[in-house]
Amino acid sequence: LGPCEALGREAFVERLRAEGQARYHDKHPFHLLMHEGKLSPEQLRAWVANRYYYQTRIPIKDALILSKSDDRAFRRMWMHRITDHDGEGEGLDLWLKLADGVGLERDAVMRYEQVLPAVRFACDAYVDFVRQHSLLEAVASSLTEYFAPDLHQRRAAAWEQHYPWVKAETLQYFRNRIPKGKRDADQTLEFVVARARTAELQAACVAALVRKCEILWALLDALQLHYVGRATR
Amino acid sequence: LGPCEALGREAFVERLRAEGQARYHDKHPFHLLMHEGKLSPEQLRAWVANRYYYQTRIPIKDALILSKSDDRAFRRMWMHRITDHDGEGEGLDLWLKLADGVGLERDAVMRYEQVLPAVRFACDAYVDFVRQHSLLEAVASSLTEYFAPDLHQRRAAAWEQHYPWVKAETLQYFRNRIPKGKRDADQTLEFVVARARTAELQAACVAALVRKCEILWALLDALQLHYVGRATR
Repeated sequence: LGPCEALGREAFVERLRAEGQARYHDKHPFHLLMHEGKLSPEQLRAWVANRYYYQTRIPIKDALILSKSDDRAFRRMWMHRITDHDGEGEGLDLWLKLADGVGLERDAVMRYEQVLPAVRFACDAYVDFVRQHSLLEAVASSLTEYFAPDLHQRRAAAWEQHYPWVKAETLQYFRNRIPKGKRDADQTLEFVVARARTAELQAACVAALVRKCEILWALLDALQLHYVGRATR
Repeated sequence: LGPCEALGREAFVERLRAEGQARYHDKHPFHLLMHEGKLSPEQLRAWVANRYYYQTRIPIKDALILSKSDDRAFRRMWMHRITDHDGEGEGLDLWLKLADGVGLERDAVMRYEQVLPAVRFACDAYVDFVRQHSLLEAVASSLTEYFAPDLHQRRAAAWEQHYPWVKAETLQYFRNRIPKGKRDADQTLEFVVARARTAELQAACVAALVRKCEILWALLDALQLHYVGRATR
């Protein structure tokens, strides 16, 4: 196969997996500290408050993805992602419950008071990326979902073990996302693999996934710098 | 009151009503012919096939409107508009039933085969308008809803009277839209009136409504020119 020929299905999936795996933010120092039980209540609260801004961008980027598709079947398949976060008692409400659980003031979280400039910039950059790229690239940027359920699972276990002061029932967001994330990831991967039929499209999908990983990493860099300091680890 | 002061609630609503009323496409010659029973089966079919393209743009523009709002309560309120068209057995399916009812080949309709260039341009321009303007202006452009239920009501009656060859049960789209359109129009008007608090914002809302009326009018102009010819009336 020459360098400009498209990869076969399995090789392309493996390429996406490898590029994502290498860059996924589960390996970020801030997450390592979190999962080893080394974050203080203040640091954990900072993560919850800052990550809330990211959570609020999800239904916005998913509405943009919907608006890029001319295919009703696709829109029907993607639609539930918006309600999964916006719906009564769904994602955003569960995140606010988590905020309660770590002792944050809910109204301050909803006003984004603690959100760091670089976090806001990174999250808005993600929405801009989705707005400005093709449907295929926008969907490919969601492929980080592929790695999320495992991270949620490890996170829920680590929090129960290391942060017993956070009530277990407020961790429902992480548990809820495990099955939903797996279903979403399967749909996303299927869509990307079916449509990225040329080497150029496959490269664009890999680039979209890499950019998304960089954005998630940048979010944690801001927390690391502000709440941990680079000398800590 | 000086010319740059915002209108009061009632005066602003009246202004929107008057500007919309004067320009709404219920007075377009093609609609007049339709409601007087003067369209041939071929002309009626052309309208159904061309208007289908407009119908397919509705969930796309509504997804763009969703993506423009940072307010979850607004998104929850607006959300149902997408499913009202995309959902199983909902708007787009009912329109395809109407296409069956007038004797069109459903697959050809779904492939937009009969859609005139100027119709495609007008409908895409509507989506572009929504994409490029503020949330308030995008919502204001939907204010044509305010006039739609009455038009649907008159249309359903006119078709039953004048086009008995179209099975009455295939007219369900029009009947369905009457209560939904009223609810939508109330929400839209409430949103616009509550947020257009300056003369500049009010003027931008009126301009958005006027542009939308022009777009709907242009769609019918294309049908009039191609299927009726300007000498007919």
